[in-house]
Amino acid sequence: MKTWTWYIFSFIGLAIILSLVFTAGNRVEHAVNLLPAVAISSTSHAPVTEAYRNPLAIFMLQIILIIITAQVCIFFVRKIGQPAVMGEIIAGILLGPSLMGAVLPQFSAFVFPAASLGNLQILSQVGLILFMFVIGMELDLDILKEKASTAVFISYFSIIIPFGLGVVLSYFLYQRYTPANIPFYAFSLFTGIALSITAFPVLARIIRERGLSGTRLGNIAITAAAIGDIAAWCILAFIVAIVKAGSFHSFIYTIVEIGVYVSVMLFVIKPMLAKLAFASTDNAVLKRSVMVFIFIILFLSAYCCEVIGIHALFGAFLAGGIMPRKKDAIKKLIDKIEDVVLALFLPLFFVSTGLRTQVFLLNSPALWGVCIIITLTAVIGKFGGSVVAARIKNESGKDSLSIGALMNTRGLVELVVLNIGYDLGILSPQMFTMMVIMALATTFMTNPLLNLINRKYR
Amino acid sequence: MKTWTWYIFSFIGLAIILSLVFTAGNRVEHAVNLLPAVAISSTSHAPVTEAYRNPLAIFMLQIILIIITAQVCIFFVRKIGQPAVMGEIIAGILLGPSLMGAVLPQFSAFVFPAASLGNLQILSQVGLILFMFVIGMELDLDILKEKASTAVFISYFSIIIPFGLGVVLSYFLYQRYTPANIPFYAFSLFTGIALSITAFPVLARIIRERGLSGTRLGNIAITAAAIGDIAAWCILAFIVAIVKAGSFHSFIYTIVEIGVYVSVMLFVIKPMLAKLAFASTDNAVLKRSVMVFIFIILFLSAYCCEVIGIHALFGAFLAGGIMPRKKDAIKKLIDKIEDVVLALFLPLFFVSTGLRTQVFLLNSPALWGVCIIITLTAVIGKFGGSVVAARIKNESGKDSLSIGALMNTRGLVELVVLNIGYDLGILSPQMFTMMVIMALATTFMTNPLLNLINRKYR
Repeated sequence: MKTWTWYIFSFIGLAIILSLVFTAGNRVEHAVNLLPAVAISSTSHAPVTEAYRNPLAIFMLQIILIIITAQVCIFFVRKIGQPAVMGEIIAGILLGPSLMGAVLPQFSAFVFPAASLGNLQILSQVGLILFMFVIGMELDLDILKEKASTAVFISYFSIIIPFGLGVVLSYFLYQRYTPANIPFYAFSLFTGIALSITAFPVLARIIRERGLSGTRLGNIAITAAAIGDIAAWCILAFIVAIVKAGSFHSFIYTIVEIGVYVSVMLFVIKPMLAKLAFASTDNAVLKRSVMVFIFIILFLSAYCCEVIGIHALFGAFLAGGIMPRKKDAIKKLIDKIEDVVLALFLPLFFVSTGLRTQVFLLNSPALWGVCIIITLTAVIGKFGGSVVAARIKNESGKDSLSIGALMNTRGLVELVVLNIGYDLGILSPQMFTMMVIMALATTFMTNPLLNLINRKYR
Repeated sequence: MKTWTWYIFSFIGLAIILSLVFTAGNRVEHAVNLLPAVAISSTSHAPVTEAYRNPLAIFMLQIILIIITAQVCIFFVRKIGQPAVMGEIIAGILLGPSLMGAVLPQFSAFVFPAASLGNLQILSQVGLILFMFVIGMELDLDILKEKASTAVFISYFSIIIPFGLGVVLSYFLYQRYTPANIPFYAFSLFTGIALSITAFPVLARIIRERGLSGTRLGNIAITAAAIGDIAAWCILAFIVAIVKAGSFHSFIYTIVEIGVYVSVMLFVIKPMLAKLAFASTDNAVLKRSVMVFIFIILFLSAYCCEVIGIHALFGAFLAGGIMPRKKDAIKKLIDKIEDVVLALFLPLFFVSTGLRTQVFLLNSPALWGVCIIITLTAVIGKFGGSVVAARIKNESGKDSLSIGALMNTRGLVELVVLNIGYDLGILSPQMFTMMVIMALATTFMTNPLLNLINRKYR
């Protein structure tokens, strides 16, 4: 027989079977209906009209809206010579209550209903965990082994001066702008560290974009930022431990737990990973099983930190830091995580930050005054501290100013720190908003400042 | 001055400032306490002991547990010559109520509290969307253009025969095992399609593992599976549209919407993507902006399908299918998505399937009998149908049997279909469990069957 006769016969056969079964089926239905479709329309019609309201649909809508807004903002900030992260922060604020919530309240309530914020929060945290992991991996500790006394010195001063200024500033802000149950030391230590942050990844990108990689200036700035990053996160972990512990007894307990955790990571997991990396040295390809193992280490580390009481992000950062320094494999891993996960999940973090940033809370000239004072203190501490330290180490005037401008970039890392403070209850929504504006302003001024310095010292 | 004097001076300075500010700070605190730490312990101590219960901690714990269990199961199933997907399915069932929930109910309630299941669900859906996107991209339509009448013929029969048998079987199952408000045609069409699924990705991997790639047998099987996949998903989309529409009027409306959506994808988006791919033809590297654009397309497509009323997964599948066929770029994209996202998020899907699979619901010999009948019908329909079709097209006995064994693999794709049926309410928990066991059994038998056939025809 020819092929087409088989097709025809089988089709006729199926049609006969179907019609027979359906005819028979009508008799076995639970209720005898001539039009069964109409009978169920009351129960199953609802899902159609409400399909766009189910959690998955809303989540997809959020992702689409967030990614598109971020891309549009990135396009515009690039036009005025700003790094991409500025666009993402601005996109987050635009989608939050500051703009969209105020102008289009119904649309905002539709896209970001309260019930969906939990999902958004978790996913943005997962994105951040992967991001901190990448930052940890990017922090090449080998540069620290080179002769870098200048960088260490600058790093030290660029933390201690804004930290000191922040603590002093906190004395004047405390009574007015702090939730009632937060003790003074918690608020002042946190303000200190919030002013001392340098955004290592943003700085690294600016240095690459301006062609400073490998120059003396670039090396000093990037090393100082790396040391500063590690120091700042250690201090922050310490502060979080103090604040969360609540009593001296449980603080000591927390410190012991941190000690055990860090020791295990450095002296058990790190050698194990190095061995694993050597075992798979022949193939440049990252095996799936190695990837899975790395993910297990990453999430276990993050989980331990969360349970100890310091933030999951520390665990992710440390897990990144102890990855074996095999350039190719690490580069590949960073590449994979960066492109997919960061493109998809990190924007969620900016938006969940934006949803907390309520610019309309700064509704009086006095509050804007405070906001400006915070920003000025941050700039004077970080920029000033770095410049003075560089001058002491006999760097040229131009290089000192450039280093100062670079160290003053706060970018995304500052937002991460501020969110931790907000979650701990140390920062009120008002204070959080002011600090976000400070982070925006100091990140924004980096490129114009560098251009100005270049023009002056041509 | 020497460097170290600067360090010392600055440190002493900071210490003095800190002590002064803290002393002053004690006076400005909201309440006068000698031990402020104790005062707040009542409010802030709770988070420490309960840290492991916050949503992020629980989510991390779930990921860790799921990934480790999956790896252990994969290790064991590999030992007995089974594909990795078997291990992942079994891991999901082990972590669900069938084993862990029954043996360690308290631990199960701790790791998978009801409140966390929403997050798990969303994330596993995101994982599935990315997975279906990859399947769509892997489906190389170029093979269909080659002379493949045998493959088309086999594919046709390997769908029509199990589909017909499934419809007949449903007649006997309907009254006992279907929720009251589901009409007969919905249940019978769904049963038909559930028995007709071939797992394209699992089949592709088995063919690769057994060294059949490029052979006549391998090509026929993979082409037939590809055509079968497309046909099955189209039929399923059609069935979902019927079931969800509820009335004839809204069914027509849905069909029109689907038509518009598919046309836009094929005639607007696809050429646009091809152009985009040509524009970036010089560099083999996928630009971040292109990645972001692709993600926007993917989620927009999935969102449209969800809103139309067919499942988001169809949108993801079609978005993958219309990606430009530039081997390098596509391979890179698949690579990136597969390793990170699938390693992290796809296991969540297996577990959320496992959480729905309740083996203890099959608590009578009669139910196990039904389960066996379903499995037998599935095997007779798919395996038998393929073998008969291959024999009609004059394939050798050995090749016909091998093609039958390969087409009978249902794997992960079957689970996706079953979950859609469960979400629509067509499958009761009992029926769902039986179908999952059928999927497991048919996937499990592929490799032993192929070995048996090889031994017989040596």
